[in-house]
Amino acid sequence: MTQKRIREYGISVGELPTGKYNKITDVKGVTVGHCTIDTDAHKTGVTVVMPCQDNIFANKMLASGFVWNGFGKTTGLVQVQELGNLETPIVLTNTLNVGLMQDALVEYMVQRCEKEQVPLKSINTVVAECNDSHLNDICHRAVREEHLFHAIDCACEDFQLGDVGAGKGTICHGLKGGIGSASRIIEIDGKEYTIGILVQSNHGRLADLTIDGKNVGKTIAQLASAPKGESDKGSIIMVIGTDLPVSERQLGRIIKRASVGLARLGSYVGHGSGEIMIGFSTAHRTASNEQHVCAMRVIPEGKIDLAFRAVAECAEEAVLDSMYCAKAVTGFDGHHINSLADWLEQDTVHEILK
Amino acid sequence: MTQKRIREYGISVGELPTGKYNKITDVKGVTVGHCTIDTDAHKTGVTVVMPCQDNIFANKMLASGFVWNGFGKTTGLVQVQELGNLETPIVLTNTLNVGLMQDALVEYMVQRCEKEQVPLKSINTVVAECNDSHLNDICHRAVREEHLFHAIDCACEDFQLGDVGAGKGTICHGLKGGIGSASRIIEIDGKEYTIGILVQSNHGRLADLTIDGKNVGKTIAQLASAPKGESDKGSIIMVIGTDLPVSERQLGRIIKRASVGLARLGSYVGHGSGEIMIGFSTAHRTASNEQHVCAMRVIPEGKIDLAFRAVAECAEEAVLDSMYCAKAVTGFDGHHINSLADWLEQDTVHEILK
Amino acid sequence: MTQKRIREYGISVGELPTGKYNKITDVKGVTVGHCTIDTDAHKTGVTVVMPCQDNIFANKMLASGFVWNGFGKTTGLVQVQELGNLETPIVLTNTLNVGLMQDALVEYMVQRCEKEQVPLKSINTVVAECNDSHLNDICHRAVREEHLFHAIDCACEDFQLGDVGAGKGTICHGLKGGIGSASRIIEIDGKEYTIGILVQSNHGRLADLTIDGKNVGKTIAQLASAPKGESDKGSIIMVIGTDLPVSERQLGRIIKRASVGLARLGSYVGHGSGEIMIGFSTAHRTASNEQHVCAMRVIPEGKIDLAFRAVAECAEEAVLDSMYCAKAVTGFDGHHINSLADWLEQDTVHEILK
Amino acid sequence: MTQKRIREYGISVGELPTGKYNKITDVKGVTVGHCTIDTDAHKTGVTVVMPCQDNIFANKMLASGFVWNGFGKTTGLVQVQELGNLETPIVLTNTLNVGLMQDALVEYMVQRCEKEQVPLKSINTVVAECNDSHLNDICHRAVREEHLFHAIDCACEDFQLGDVGAGKGTICHGLKGGIGSASRIIEIDGKEYTIGILVQSNHGRLADLTIDGKNVGKTIAQLASAPKGESDKGSIIMVIGTDLPVSERQLGRIIKRASVGLARLGSYVGHGSGEIMIGFSTAHRTASNEQHVCAMRVIPEGKIDLAFRAVAECAEEAVLDSMYCAKAVTGFDGHHINSLADWLEQDTVHEILK
Repeated sequence: MTQKRIREYGISVGELPTGKYNKITDVKGVTVGHCTIDTDAHKTGVTVVMPCQDNIFANKMLASGFVWNGFGKTTGLVQVQELGNLETPIVLTNTLNVGLMQDALVEYMVQRCEKEQVPLKSINTVVAECNDSHLNDICHRAVREEHLFHAIDCACEDFQLGDVGAGKGTICHGLKGGIGSASRIIEIDGKEYTIGILVQSNHGRLADLTIDGKNVGKTIAQLASAPKGESDKGSIIMVIGTDLPVSERQLGRIIKRASVGLARLGSYVGHGSGEIMIGFSTAHRTASNEQHVCAMRVIPEGKIDLAFRAVAECAEEAVLDSMYCAKAVTGFDGHHINSLADWLEQDTVHEILK
Repeated sequence: MTQKRIREYGISVGELPTGKYNKITDVKGVTVGHCTIDTDAHKTGVTVVMPCQDNIFANKMLASGFVWNGFGKTTGLVQVQELGNLETPIVLTNTLNVGLMQDALVEYMVQRCEKEQVPLKSINTVVAECNDSHLNDICHRAVREEHLFHAIDCACEDFQLGDVGAGKGTICHGLKGGIGSASRIIEIDGKEYTIGILVQSNHGRLADLTIDGKNVGKTIAQLASAPKGESDKGSIIMVIGTDLPVSERQLGRIIKRASVGLARLGSYVGHGSGEIMIGFSTAHRTASNEQHVCAMRVIPEGKIDLAFRAVAECAEEAVLDSMYCAKAVTGFDGHHINSLADWLEQDTVHEILK
Repeated sequence: MTQKRIREYGISVGELPTGKYNKITDVKGVTVGHCTIDTDAHKTGVTVVMPCQDNIFANKMLASGFVWNGFGKTTGLVQVQELGNLETPIVLTNTLNVGLMQDALVEYMVQRCEKEQVPLKSINTVVAECNDSHLNDICHRAVREEHLFHAIDCACEDFQLGDVGAGKGTICHGLKGGIGSASRIIEIDGKEYTIGILVQSNHGRLADLTIDGKNVGKTIAQLASAPKGESDKGSIIMVIGTDLPVSERQLGRIIKRASVGLARLGSYVGHGSGEIMIGFSTAHRTASNEQHVCAMRVIPEGKIDLAFRAVAECAEEAVLDSMYCAKAVTGFDGHHINSLADWLEQDTVHEILK
Repeated sequence: MTQKRIREYGISVGELPTGKYNKITDVKGVTVGHCTIDTDAHKTGVTVVMPCQDNIFANKMLASGFVWNGFGKTTGLVQVQELGNLETPIVLTNTLNVGLMQDALVEYMVQRCEKEQVPLKSINTVVAECNDSHLNDICHRAVREEHLFHAIDCACEDFQLGDVGAGKGTICHGLKGGIGSASRIIEIDGKEYTIGILVQSNHGRLADLTIDGKNVGKTIAQLASAPKGESDKGSIIMVIGTDLPVSERQLGRIIKRASVGLARLGSYVGHGSGEIMIGFSTAHRTASNEQHVCAMRVIPEGKIDLAFRAVAECAEEAVLDSMYCAKAVTGFDGHHINSLADWLEQDTVHEILK
């Protein structure tokens, strides 16, 4: 993958070191796949986060969810919160495709479990969404089972960012949004751990966009003569993965801090913006038929601040990259959305960020 | 509808008067429809609660959800809690059909809104479920869009109870469960209001079943030589409707009390039992494009106890009726589940309840 | 202690075996102390649950809280939920004495930590309450620091039940309430564990009181010509202790099930009744200055049903004992409250329960 | 009051207009009083927010709470959440004085209700806190009943900011914190409304402090040779008042957005930082013995974004003012904390912010 990232443009977020790819896949075992639908009427798709390569239904993974603003249709969080685990990959798509993707994910897990001889009579699928109806003819629900299966087949470590997969039609701070990712390395009790994030960005007002503390959005809005009254619609989904040994409670605390990164980019967490965090830790797996008392390793609470900082930094950088890596898109009904990268090349804007 | 109810057998729950049908449809405007799938391999279906006859997306209805035990896949609650409203009918089905029913419900609303010229680009569907895999070949997801559309077409006030619709394959306290319903009339500030409930029952151990304070389940278990170690699996979905003028907070308090009714029937709210309440009040509607400050009428908090009692009584009676009205069923893989009504005719059991 | 318990009267709750005392102190390390204030104007006091004998601030104990109905003034739950631990004993008193008891508990911990050379600059005290204003001149806040210190000094395993300590002035189902306790032994993964409960009972309507499935409250209400319209006021505090190795999430699930026991006694969880559960597990302690990754042992989730059943049984029996062990009391303004034990000796009532 | 505010230094936050005082008291009826304890060993005190001048127990005010990070001892939120109202003034103090202030607030309300012939047998006091133990000998609990009574007597509209009352000993981003306040005016449905905030700031790392998007904290930390490893301890309490007609649910959404302001100043919401929001709306009052169905006026949800923006702007500016208005303080054990205002006069720092 040779996409130029916001870091290469010269904007670094925070002080912690990144992982190899500066993506969620820096967490060992995690892969990400996309399937993009790109027709005149449809700019949409599906993105899948595979938290592990083995069967996650057979060996459930510790997980937690947090709803910052619940104007959203994410499914599966009820059970994630009750049982503290994840038993399917996490799928992202557009708002009206959640049902079909849920069904496709059931089908994938039924087939896989049958092949691997894992009994399955019930499964909690996690599917999240953003509304891409400005660029995508959403009512037709263009994403189908074969698209999810394709995304799963394509899943890899060095996956693409920007206007791909579930991010093909999203809009962030009035510019093209999409899929972003970042990672950070922290050291606790003498050992290195990785925290990574993947976002599907679709939120924010252009005039509020703030990069590196500078409100460039206002300038862009003036240059672009964007309508002033636009509201903070859309949503952002944040998937956080880590190999930190944590309890469900600790993981819940960690993922909440992703919201800090959004605020710094200028978001007020608008009414219409479903802001939802879903986290998992690869450090704790539970066999679905576990019969014995087990040991769950947990970090000392006094060291958790490092993880908070890491996730906040990741969220801020991932949203920036989701925009920076996305090209301008013209979609449904001829709607056109500009790319942040193009604006950042403009002298007036570049000057602000220098 | 001429089904014999548990009241006619001689068991009355509580002290409050019932509505005309003693069903959720005693709340004005509410109707319920079923579509039952009854083949050798499939005992399942879909049940839809229509909270009103006009377009609920155009005029959203005040609503609240409560997750007593979140081992369940109900979808839509995130937004119900955030916005305090409902914008689709409530659909019940089997666990693995939630995705397809969600998609079918989107399709229904898209079509209806198009016909009624209501703009729709995003919608929060509420679909709940129980796991009927003992009697139903659940992995095939037999319930399809046409079944939901049929259920909606059939929706009426005097709907059927027992082994119908989403209750065709469910099991409650080791006997045949299904769809139950009940209602109560209360008077607050000089005016009569109705509280109704509809349940999809699929929870509980046989040995724990307690009717009218008597642990008949133990006797039935002995007579039936049921396995002693059976666990409290399955789930129960409770849909509560009312015409009480309440705030979202008040409605949330009211629907929680449905759990009281379950405890009295002997449930310990088992680990594997997703116990989920979804409530709505027909007294407060909000136009989707509302621009003005509105008045929301709310009952005095000091009078809310009556509503608590009503919903607890309704829940207990509705579960009993879901069982009493259900016939014995032989389903998938030849699995057979007995009917409570048959046992209640047995002398030994009848004697206990006399 | 030679108090007659409800079991000796002939009422047994549930099927699980009890611990030695059938009290929360069957959990190893737990003791309970009372200080009772019994004057003409004041029928009140303080009860303290010591979860361990060593310094709990230095070695915090895993804990969880659950608010079933939040009409209550319990303090400390915010931090218990965030950090999943307990760092003081749990103190029960009357509603208006919470502030003074909180301060007294701070003083106790400051003194103890100074003596034991444990640095203390901040501490989260847990103080719960019921409103005993019918029998106690509550506005004078009669419970003082010395009373708490005395209760701590008196803490023992075989503590008294009924109208003692924080239960001196409480009323349950229209009869004298107070302090109750119970315990159950369960076996998981080949090892025996204990779950115990202590309640301060102050809730429920007389007419709703149901013992062993029989609505004796209605009969007592008629015999006593109790006012029919009385509401379900007051509160119930439930402290649950166990030596089960569980995560904070698992403990939270377990303590919620205490509500099942209340429902079976006839409670509708009235609006005015603060129903609050506070739980701790002695199996997991964390040094306040922990620097290392630790192992937290957790039971397999599939076995948690046993703990659910145990806590529900305990709750039901503890409330019954809180009443059965309490004598009739005449207090503030000459208000008189009868004892359940006296009614249970009456032929009409005894006949019902036989 | 002639304190210089951060706006006069040249830093303006956001785009919305402020109220007359740019304080929470711009909300009609709200006053604030302090009592400061300033001795060699004690730098602490109490601050009281009076949401109205009439008896709030007799006419309860709509309210909501939100716990962003629950490492804190705030009391009263359980009932605020359940009933959606406030029945006492809101009191802020130091961590170990919560108990005494709760008791003093009970005493104040008992006396006032007696005088005004309002029956009182139970009351839910709201007391919040920050830990000021670096500058204050906290274990002695220096704040007493007379101090609260004095603060209430002094309550006024044009109250002081900075190192006063409950803010006397607090530390924010490594510099002197204290009491801050701000307000914004918004227009909804043709009418102007006010949103105000009062903060007790005691959180954040110096190196993270970011003003107007510029990380001045890092520079100050270097100039001040502050220890690099310092953690984000302490807490922040945010009291939000408004005259907006909103439901409890809507108010809950609004007050959550205060967190956005904190993130922009560089906070990562540290583990040890209790971040708690308490909000009230003067637009809805409920008589404590209300018998009738009432009308609660609510804004259209689609307009709520303005309130979100207002509260985020207020929070950011209030924290800045809490620091800017606070002088350097030398307290307990000779500990000294610098003032932000002093640093902002330094050329190196001033240059950054120009």
